Amino acid sequence: MIMEDMVTIAVIGAGQCTIREARLAEEVGRELARRGAALICGGLGGVMEAACRGASEAGGLTIGILPGENRQQANPYIQLAIASGVGRARNMAVVKSARAVIAVSGGYGTLSEIAFALQSGIPVIGLNTWSLVKNGQTDSAIIPAQNAAQAVTLAMELAA
Amino acid sequence: MIMEDMVTIAVIGAGQCTIREARLAEEVGRELARRGAALICGGLGGVMEAACRGASEAGGLTIGILPGENRQQANPYIQLAIASGVGRARNMAVVKSARAVIAVSGGYGTLSEIAFALQSGIPVIGLNTWSLVKNGQTDSAIIPAQNAAQAVTLAMELAA
Amino acid sequence: MIMEDMVTIAVIGAGQCTIREARLAEEVGRELARRGAALICGGLGGVMEAACRGASEAGGLTIGILPGENRQQANPYIQLAIASGVGRARNMAVVKSARAVIAVSGGYGTLSEIAFALQSGIPVIGLNTWSLVKNGQTDSAIIPAQNAAQAVTLAMELAA
Amino acid sequence: MIMEDMVTIAVIGAGQCTIREARLAEEVGRELARRGAALICGGLGGVMEAACRGASEAGGLTIGILPGENRQQANPYIQLAIASGVGRARNMAVVKSARAVIAVSGGYGTLSEIAFALQSGIPVIGLNTWSLVKNGQTDSAIIPAQNAAQAVTLAMELAA
Repeated sequence: MIMEDMVTIAVIGAGQCTIREARLAEEVGRELARRGAALICGGLGGVMEAACRGASEAGGLTIGILPGENRQQANPYIQLAIASGVGRARNMAVVKSARAVIAVSGGYGTLSEIAFALQSGIPVIGLNTWSLVKNGQTDSAIIPAQNAAQAVTLAMELAA
Repeated sequence: MIMEDMVTIAVIGAGQCTIREARLAEEVGRELARRGAALICGGLGGVMEAACRGASEAGGLTIGILPGENRQQANPYIQLAIASGVGRARNMAVVKSARAVIAVSGGYGTLSEIAFALQSGIPVIGLNTWSLVKNGQTDSAIIPAQNAAQAVTLAMELAA
Repeated sequence: MIMEDMVTIAVIGAGQCTIREARLAEEVGRELARRGAALICGGLGGVMEAACRGASEAGGLTIGILPGENRQQANPYIQLAIASGVGRARNMAVVKSARAVIAVSGGYGTLSEIAFALQSGIPVIGLNTWSLVKNGQTDSAIIPAQNAAQAVTLAMELAA
Repeated sequence: MIMEDMVTIAVIGAGQCTIREARLAEEVGRELARRGAALICGGLGGVMEAACRGASEAGGLTIGILPGENRQQANPYIQLAIASGVGRARNMAVVKSARAVIAVSGGYGTLSEIAFALQSGIPVIGLNTWSLVKNGQTDSAIIPAQNAAQAVTLAMELAA
């Protein structure tokens, strides 16, 4: 099981989501698995679970960095659960352990992960997610994608 | 030294800033001290140091929650230094330990703090800082202020 | 409210304790306050609460670094509550923010704090607490005290 | 790559170690791989690196939970690097993500991990490591092993 050259991509988004967001996340997960990337996420439900389901069904590796101390909190598609024990501070670990980040919609928790990624120079691809305006000027750091396949293509290119 | 009824307000912003931002932050710190609020921040330079200088000179209490394990990292106006040891994950503690947050300009680190505060329902007042757009819709959670005095007035009202 | 020269001492111990342990902790808190030291602790019940009660009644400053995100978790004698949000990882912050540590009895959580303090070269004074044996050899890093007054005297000397 | 039923065992020990300790750790890693367990550790040098080398050479999976934000800090035998960004607070994640812990010698950092594991009811097997005495009474929670094979046998049994 040689993982040395495996590219790890984070998928971030809310713990509760609409059916449409879940489908989008699932497709992102499936595409990542097809291209041989490992999926890293916060390990819980909603977008995270949908992405893991897609990746898992396509034979990919899924890693969940949980907020709590209990590995049982992980969604059923997580293959490797890390119980961080540091609460929402684990958002940092999710993005810093990846080479690129794909944000699917998402609320303020997702926004904190986007912020940590951009602060570290890790590329962020956005699917129906936040846009940023700083002091009246548009900040174009989040790279918009039109669909799951394009998001994964961009993420794989930027991770290289 | 009875602090039970002391209101704690966080001032967040970048570790390096312009002279204009420093003046603004200093005035925020001074106003907080005049109104009897304790100032909590990330303990480092830039906006954090300027706000602490203002508060300290006006006789206020300043608390710094540092990223590292060394209390010596604190700026010279910090009266109580907490050495968190958890790096940028301390951003969570800065906002969660306050009743309201005033953001002065700021980069992606400040954005992560804004996100954590909003996720927790802690009011955020903005001075020349980020605006948020979610999926094309303006998110008006950050309350804009025109100047330091107004920012502090809003923070004190929302903290009550 | 000038705190610059204030010496901060941590008191560590279990969140549930016997009446005898509570009396000991309370006396440690009282002695710290009498000598002008600020007391820092994990902010919860048991030994932490008893020490804060002693310090608070003697007019001292008490600081609690809580595991959770909610400042309301603090015991009623905490004057300044830091909501770390990082769970038991806050044990590091408790000891690293102090110049010396006094351990009153305590379980495995206290042992983790003792370990972090010793790893950082922060002196640990023990009252009815753990002793360490490494590979068959006694490790005498924890300095035993016979009573609360002696523990505080040792802590103040080593903090200087 | 189905990991669902994979047993994860943590190997803890110092970042610098003697040749004898490295040999012992390497053998522990090799035995874990032979029995199909994944090895989790703090990702750095010394005992961690030696254990990963043994596991890796025997075809096992190695996971490193690093203190910093940079995955490049990982030792060369780490296949999956988690960049926690929370410093020594990652010691919690190392033990909480495992079903059992094997301590090889070790200093105060290792002691903090032992304490966190025991506090959580996670079994700890010791090879030439700490012994604990609480208030004059021996605490026999750390299960001593005579050699690497026995340590791994005990860990696998207790993880079941």
